Amino acid sequence: MEKQVWKPGAMLNPVPVVMVSCGSISQKTNIITIGWTGTICTIPPMLSISVRKSRFSHALIKDSGKFVVNLVSQPLVRAADWCGVKSGRDFDKFAEMGLTAVKAVTSNCPVIDESPVNIECTVSQIIELGSHDLFIANIDSVSVSQDLIDSSTGAMDLKKANLAAYCHGEYMALGSQIGKFGFSVRKKKKGN
Amino acid sequence: MEKQVWKPGAMLNPVPVVMVSCGSISQKTNIITIGWTGTICTIPPMLSISVRKSRFSHALIKDSGKFVVNLVSQPLVRAADWCGVKSGRDFDKFAEMGLTAVKAVTSNCPVIDESPVNIECTVSQIIELGSHDLFIANIDSVSVSQDLIDSSTGAMDLKKANLAAYCHGEYMALGSQIGKFGFSVRKKKKGN
Repeated sequence: MEKQVWKPGAMLNPVPVVMVSCGSISQKTNIITIGWTGTICTIPPMLSISVRKSRFSHALIKDSGKFVVNLVSQPLVRAADWCGVKSGRDFDKFAEMGLTAVKAVTSNCPVIDESPVNIECTVSQIIELGSHDLFIANIDSVSVSQDLIDSSTGAMDLKKANLAAYCHGEYMALGSQIGKFGFSVRKKKKGN
Repeated sequence: MEKQVWKPGAMLNPVPVVMVSCGSISQKTNIITIGWTGTICTIPPMLSISVRKSRFSHALIKDSGKFVVNLVSQPLVRAADWCGVKSGRDFDKFAEMGLTAVKAVTSNCPVIDESPVNIECTVSQIIELGSHDLFIANIDSVSVSQDLIDSSTGAMDLKKANLAAYCHGEYMALGSQIGKFGFSVRKKKKGN
């Protein structure tokens, strides 16, 4: 395949797009939209977010050691984009976007009620990398919308959440399912 | 919104799904499929991958300090799934999947030629977290398929790559574009 060699850049795609809520439900709250995030460990469950020092949320998260990763459904993409562009120094982002701040299960951090999945986290380590600081965090609790759960089986169908992804500057809907993990080695069922 | 509180778990979704190639083009090569990856810094450009110590690729990456993140287009999803399930101790994954190993621009690491975008990396730090070790890496070079680049403008259209995402155990195609970064604050053009 013919390729062009480019200078180094952040070209991993697609990445998640999440709204990180932080601060304290009884004092200042804020929301920062983040694409530089990822799961980093299964046991214990851990994730990371990368935040510029200049961002208003940086100090809020550093001071409390707590934040919540709120997954972004398609109806929340406009709010996510706005929260990624505007600063919490100038706006009450919950109020401006008509979002509801609910107290987290495990801390005084605000959770975005309208998000279908809230992942509550505690910072364990902050690593200075350059433009961004890497916040390494343990996952303390996960809250899942009842709408995603089959009431008879208890199984969750995350496709019902219509989550968005971020790909090279664009918010994208998820499309069709290509296969489940392990499909390449699964034996086909006999008959029909 | 009514929510169920779950125990902590890796619930960040969707996440990237990438094929990480490693080893040396002139000796042993391998491919490991990874969803626990993310961009962690813009300047300098950096990303992380998380790998279990038991994985064959763990030692290859640790020893050489080099790996390549190969983005996964939809036609590569079956190979990605297979490379995530099988071990390089038992198979030559390039040969088994009919993939072409090409030497990286900046190291002796193999690159998957069939992948539309190859991101060459050097490990700067390894952090033991639990089930997974976090490999923090600098991005050294990016190679992009000529097919994604408009020959007259030089602009890249990553949508042409038909990249896949990973969401709660399922490989998903990317669907329609919801909006570009900043769309929530962009002024509408006057007239039509």
